[in-house]
Amino acid sequence: MATHVQQFNVPQCYRDKILKWNGWGYNDSAFILENGVVKFTGSRYDMSGTKMPQFRPWFEANIGVRIDYVTPSQARTDLIAPEPINNQEFIDYLRANDIAYSNAAQHRIARSHGHTVHDIVRLRHGKLERIPDLVVWPNSEQQVVKVVEAANQFNVVIIPIGGGTSVSNALECPSEEKRSICSLDMAIMDKILWIDDSNFLCRAQAGIIGQSLERQLNAKGYTCGHEPDSIEFSSLGGWVATRASGMKKNKYGNIEDLLVHVNMVTAKGVIRKHCQVEVPRISSGPDLHHVILGSEGTLGVITEVTIKIFPLPEVKKYGSFVFPTFGHGVDFFREVAKQQCQPASLRLMDNEQFMMGQALKSEVKSFWESLSTKLAKIYLTKWKGFKVIS
Amino acid sequence: MATHVQQFNVPQCYRDKILKWNGWGYNDSAFILENGVVKFTGSRYDMSGTKMPQFRPWFEANIGVRIDYVTPSQARTDLIAPEPINNQEFIDYLRANDIAYSNAAQHRIARSHGHTVHDIVRLRHGKLERIPDLVVWPNSEQQVVKVVEAANQFNVVIIPIGGGTSVSNALECPSEEKRSICSLDMAIMDKILWIDDSNFLCRAQAGIIGQSLERQLNAKGYTCGHEPDSIEFSSLGGWVATRASGMKKNKYGNIEDLLVHVNMVTAKGVIRKHCQVEVPRISSGPDLHHVILGSEGTLGVITEVTIKIFPLPEVKKYGSFVFPTFGHGVDFFREVAKQQCQPASLRLMDNEQFMMGQALKSEVKSFWESLSTKLAKIYLTKWKGFKVIS
Repeated sequence: MATHVQQFNVPQCYRDKILKWNGWGYNDSAFILENGVVKFTGSRYDMSGTKMPQFRPWFEANIGVRIDYVTPSQARTDLIAPEPINNQEFIDYLRANDIAYSNAAQHRIARSHGHTVHDIVRLRHGKLERIPDLVVWPNSEQQVVKVVEAANQFNVVIIPIGGGTSVSNALECPSEEKRSICSLDMAIMDKILWIDDSNFLCRAQAGIIGQSLERQLNAKGYTCGHEPDSIEFSSLGGWVATRASGMKKNKYGNIEDLLVHVNMVTAKGVIRKHCQVEVPRISSGPDLHHVILGSEGTLGVITEVTIKIFPLPEVKKYGSFVFPTFGHGVDFFREVAKQQCQPASLRLMDNEQFMMGQALKSEVKSFWESLSTKLAKIYLTKWKGFKVIS
Repeated sequence: MATHVQQFNVPQCYRDKILKWNGWGYNDSAFILENGVVKFTGSRYDMSGTKMPQFRPWFEANIGVRIDYVTPSQARTDLIAPEPINNQEFIDYLRANDIAYSNAAQHRIARSHGHTVHDIVRLRHGKLERIPDLVVWPNSEQQVVKVVEAANQFNVVIIPIGGGTSVSNALECPSEEKRSICSLDMAIMDKILWIDDSNFLCRAQAGIIGQSLERQLNAKGYTCGHEPDSIEFSSLGGWVATRASGMKKNKYGNIEDLLVHVNMVTAKGVIRKHCQVEVPRISSGPDLHHVILGSEGTLGVITEVTIKIFPLPEVKKYGSFVFPTFGHGVDFFREVAKQQCQPASLRLMDNEQFMMGQALKSEVKSFWESLSTKLAKIYLTKWKGFKVIS
């Protein structure tokens, strides 16, 4: 059965153009085998284009990876998208209001999942079950209001999507849903609206991607301080909707600490605090921000967000300690908490995790280059029994 | 009309015994005139028992206070409490369940108001309008549950009260309320339940008063870090219910930052997070704590609270800067915010407020003793035009 594709004014989204359809990250960046040695392709990262001679032997020895056991992904064209349930009144309304949309399979599939391992395995080897029937791309809060009102009027389900890196299954369509499901993609609402240099605030549209927000703030001498692992692909609105945590939360706080104001379009209207000035704290009454935070798109569409911003640090300094046992490391963390002297980021790794990290290093770098003396190496390995990939 | 007083097992509360019925604080601590000089009575504070020779002249000259213009409070006995609306089924239920209560006028009056200037003026010069009909003193969360269930069953209104220092009118009874109004006093639920030295947490019953909590924590080397102006009289549960801010929030955070867990008894059951361990943060879903925070007693009764605690600071250091203009001070505050180098507390005062503070000093202390040299005094007053009470 051939689907009649209905689409209007579809934007050229990075999601559809440069991201893997069946995995994490960019099309051009992947681990490959070259003459039996693992290499990372592309040119986006420091590690891009370099060989990792320790990668294969370590994973073979420790994780049980067998290089001759391959599980190639099915082709994208093997994935059969179910026929969309078109709500024609809704689609006609969108067209009449100049709101971009598409019911093409590739747009719907790309917005049907998050990025859990389960999601990716299903894309590579599984079948599509219930997926969105339509994708819309509003370009303003006013358009979001129209989409939500129309969804209400015509009995359409909305699932908002930001960066699509969700690991909470919030993008999954309920299999029993008979109404038309509309994926509301925030991709083109990606602008910084203003930066307040006096109060260290920034307001942006919720669809802005973390790395874009951070790059623009950096250019003005600021950082947003929020650095989830997904920052390259996740969106500001998604951070709020998922109550995200960042790697530098010790210094800057988690997203709930950074959030100052947020607009959410709901079926009953737009929720926003009526503060003429952007006050940093309101002590009267419950704080509905904390109902929006973590709402995962179930209560409305986050359209605009005001966050705290911070001057870029003058210095970034990295360091490491080696503890005799993992327990000593835990004690160290407790002492740091007690003395309230946390650096921006602090992580405790066991020896195995450390070695895996070493196995991912490129051939031109190694842990030992960062150790100042051979004596330190001998002390750690011979005296303390710390295992390394030399 | 003589009221038949119904009471059972009424506890001896500090509120009824040692606090002013018509003003802030302790009965024994007040400003009086002695030979024309202002003196602070009692022995509770550093300033207690000392004379303040600058107090009267400064207030006469700057605030227009006239010492011969007096507005004495009416006597407590002049305040006529309205007849209580007794819900006898409810009262009988309390008695049958060993829950302390009283409908005596003095207990009801003391729990009919907060501590706004308006509240105090009304006590001193006004009439009582609608006040609670009954006071109950549950001694456990189980008793709170029983009171709330019975209120639901017998159609009684509950207004919870902690320290009674509310400035939000949350303790005011709606004048049109025809149902029996029950003031649920948390006074005897005032115990610390446990302190967790590993995770720096403390769980206490919500009725514990700030100074009692802090004194007990101090004895174990901790501080709760929350220091509202009302800390002598306000309660832990009240801090949560009013979303309180403390003077040292720069270092320790406001109550919403300190709150880790809370139990609230509602008409539909007890709300609490089901975490077996006291996890510091939950990223999934909306955070109902922030609906409880600031709920002002309207949604339920806060019974138990887990807060973060901190090691006592090794050093407390105080200091001051003098700015050429108020605007320079504001700029300084912005720069401190930018550089994120806030001390625990930081306040900007204008010259008038500074002088009022000086006027409150006792005769044996003065600002100038804290200035290291006479040169500094001359520099500030002659060169910079800074006004002081010398």
